[in-house]
Amino acid sequence: MLSKSQIKFINGLRKKKQRTENQLFIVEGIKAVEDMILSKMPLHQLYATSLYNNELNIDQITLISEKELKMISQFSTPNQILAIFKIPQPDSHNHKDLTLVLDDINDPGNLGTIIRLCDWYDINLICSKNTVDCYNPKVVQATMGSIARVNICYQDLSEFLNTSERPIYGAVLNGSVVYQTSLPQKAILIMGNEANGISSAIEKYVQNPITIPQFGKNQNTESLNVATATAILCSEFKRFL
Amino acid sequence: MLSKSQIKFINGLRKKKQRTENQLFIVEGIKAVEDMILSKMPLHQLYATSLYNNELNIDQITLISEKELKMISQFSTPNQILAIFKIPQPDSHNHKDLTLVLDDINDPGNLGTIIRLCDWYDINLICSKNTVDCYNPKVVQATMGSIARVNICYQDLSEFLNTSERPIYGAVLNGSVVYQTSLPQKAILIMGNEANGISSAIEKYVQNPITIPQFGKNQNTESLNVATATAILCSEFKRFL
Repeated sequence: MLSKSQIKFINGLRKKKQRTENQLFIVEGIKAVEDMILSKMPLHQLYATSLYNNELNIDQITLISEKELKMISQFSTPNQILAIFKIPQPDSHNHKDLTLVLDDINDPGNLGTIIRLCDWYDINLICSKNTVDCYNPKVVQATMGSIARVNICYQDLSEFLNTSERPIYGAVLNGSVVYQTSLPQKAILIMGNEANGISSAIEKYVQNPITIPQFGKNQNTESLNVATATAILCSEFKRFL
Repeated sequence: MLSKSQIKFINGLRKKKQRTENQLFIVEGIKAVEDMILSKMPLHQLYATSLYNNELNIDQITLISEKELKMISQFSTPNQILAIFKIPQPDSHNHKDLTLVLDDINDPGNLGTIIRLCDWYDINLICSKNTVDCYNPKVVQATMGSIARVNICYQDLSEFLNTSERPIYGAVLNGSVVYQTSLPQKAILIMGNEANGISSAIEKYVQNPITIPQFGKNQNTESLNVATATAILCSEFKRFL
């Protein structure tokens, strides 16, 4: 049974301000929630209908009706459970070979896809403060559980790039052809905003501008989707390991 | 000025049945529409508000009010123009080096991203009949104009694969590591459905199963997003050319 103030509180977590203040975020659906719990994401509270088969023996569980689940879900046909997790602290001592830096990515689907890619390729992720919040429900859903396994840090990019000692690569339209570039094992790769690319304030840190060459003769083709380009470039860093 | 039946007809084109019967589809927004026209997509009719600066001197133009545009747009804040184009005939004599075959891709965003990728890498696209319709408005929007420049054909995959003479590769979870596989210039690459991968009916045509290796130690990570995986594999086919 949910009180009015509980419903208001849960729906409030769809807003970044409320998530930040409470350091909590929402995940929906059996598979996504169980995946988070198995990946040790700290659970705050779980709401489930009587249909839910609690195989993981979760303690912090509140039984609710299907009608109540609809009132707190973002979906028109929600899938039995909705969970609230604590936002984990990024681990600044977690040094992986490749660090991906996102300069103001706006689209939740793109960020979700990129987080899933970082999980697969074992990459650390640093996002500019204006990048869409990774605990936005659309991002969380698009990561397919990967958000529990990727070390994600929001910080001032200039500050990070100023103090970093690794070679800095950046995706641009007129750089060296990536297929003909020898890439180091330990590096930083910067990807820019969907519409504007890497901002001028950050561009100056790019020591090695790289480009995915275009094969079609269609000069109108502007660019690849940023998640697509990120995938291809991360694959290039990892393929010779 | 739009009549009630015109409004009904245009909105009907959001459904696949109506698009197929009339061989027409919708594109919205100045950039996307102009991009289509510059890429020689055959225009059927263009609806524009008085704000639209008709720099391309388009003939088939109907002036409408902003209120009317809202009635035929899928967006809450539409961008000055909405165009109806004729669905082009796929060119079966258009033999590019790489042909990508999609076995029941469901998500419009994924298909749109893949079409944009095919444009960039100069790849032919063959979709199974159950793949989401490429003239679905969400797909069209996600292609960012690339739909005008990619040769897309919907057909029975068994029929196509039976008669094809090129080596057939397929993305699977336990194939040869793609980074250690020598890939030919001319080939067919099959990508499967988001949830189920390549169907058993199509799997038997795969002569060369290939896999993108996982680098993280997280055994829970299931897979990459299908558009991400397609990008990485297409890049592998093209990187040595």
